[in-house]
Amino acid sequence: MKNDYPHLREEKIDSTQVFRGRLLDVRLDRVRLPDGQECHREYVRHQGAVVVIAQLDDGQLLLVRQHRYPLGRSILELPAGKIDAGEAILATGTRELLEETGYSATDWRYLGVMHPCVGYSDERIEIYLARGLRREAEQNLDSGEFMDVLSLSLQDALAAVKSGEITDAKTITGLFWAEKAILGGW
Amino acid sequence: MKNDYPHLREEKIDSTQVFRGRLLDVRLDRVRLPDGQECHREYVRHQGAVVVIAQLDDGQLLLVRQHRYPLGRSILELPAGKIDAGEAILATGTRELLEETGYSATDWRYLGVMHPCVGYSDERIEIYLARGLRREAEQNLDSGEFMDVLSLSLQDALAAVKSGEITDAKTITGLFWAEKAILGGW
Repeated sequence: MKNDYPHLREEKIDSTQVFRGRLLDVRLDRVRLPDGQECHREYVRHQGAVVVIAQLDDGQLLLVRQHRYPLGRSILELPAGKIDAGEAILATGTRELLEETGYSATDWRYLGVMHPCVGYSDERIEIYLARGLRREAEQNLDSGEFMDVLSLSLQDALAAVKSGEITDAKTITGLFWAEKAILGGW
Repeated sequence: MKNDYPHLREEKIDSTQVFRGRLLDVRLDRVRLPDGQECHREYVRHQGAVVVIAQLDDGQLLLVRQHRYPLGRSILELPAGKIDAGEAILATGTRELLEETGYSATDWRYLGVMHPCVGYSDERIEIYLARGLRREAEQNLDSGEFMDVLSLSLQDALAAVKSGEITDAKTITGLFWAEKAILGGW
């Protein structure tokens, strides 16, 4: 990455791991601000993730319903999952789609990348549109994972964004992006 | 919130604060899974935030360029900021728009809410479309904040999403949503 916008740039002085759980690697870094002052930045280091807009031959999109403990309730999301160490992002997409829904796909189109939480996480989420779907197997979830699989038309999914039923940012971004990709020439 | 989808539901057993910084409140909770087993969930507690799509009378949208330390570079974002304790969300939007850009707005339309990071944060981001903009003052940033203000047309901002120049999820969601609100009858 080029040394862009030096009048905005913050430089690391040192980094301390303040929590290391099974999921979260939390850092407290001392940084030099553009005006020369020192301050601290707190953030989560994350291995990245992939979200999949999987479209069945009849046009319906696969979604999963999953309890999200931080929110205290179940929500609707596009299939997604974390990138394993050393794993190619397409392999993550293929694996997570199969594990969460039981489907494979023959046609994978890369759409782009989003950063869900730039204030306190380095996570990136890579976005794929998957078509040529085939039911291969039952769900094969990780230990401690529970989710329902359902399908919605793109229009019904977008209506669920508008109504507030779908609030997950990677899912909203994925659905809007898929609309552009499927209908809008993106 | 109703006790939805009990076959998916995870119940808190107890909660431990494992890190408390100036920004991050990191929790490690013991939870009961739907199959009766116990496991741990790690997550960040967040006070919530507001993002503003601010449209000038000539149609241009206000954006800010800010170094995001977790990403190690400067990115383009819609104006946004955290909700202070006890603050109404419209007051947050008004305050952050003025602090970050120097603009006030007379016409505030609530669009919806997103959850940026459901896997490990309870953060919600409320979305407003602001019009009737007037330049009131210079930027008035918090200590340790540095950002440039610029304006882009909606079409140029969407093109920057497509090209990968804009990757921030709240900004992508806000821009797509604003397109629906401004052009699509949402």
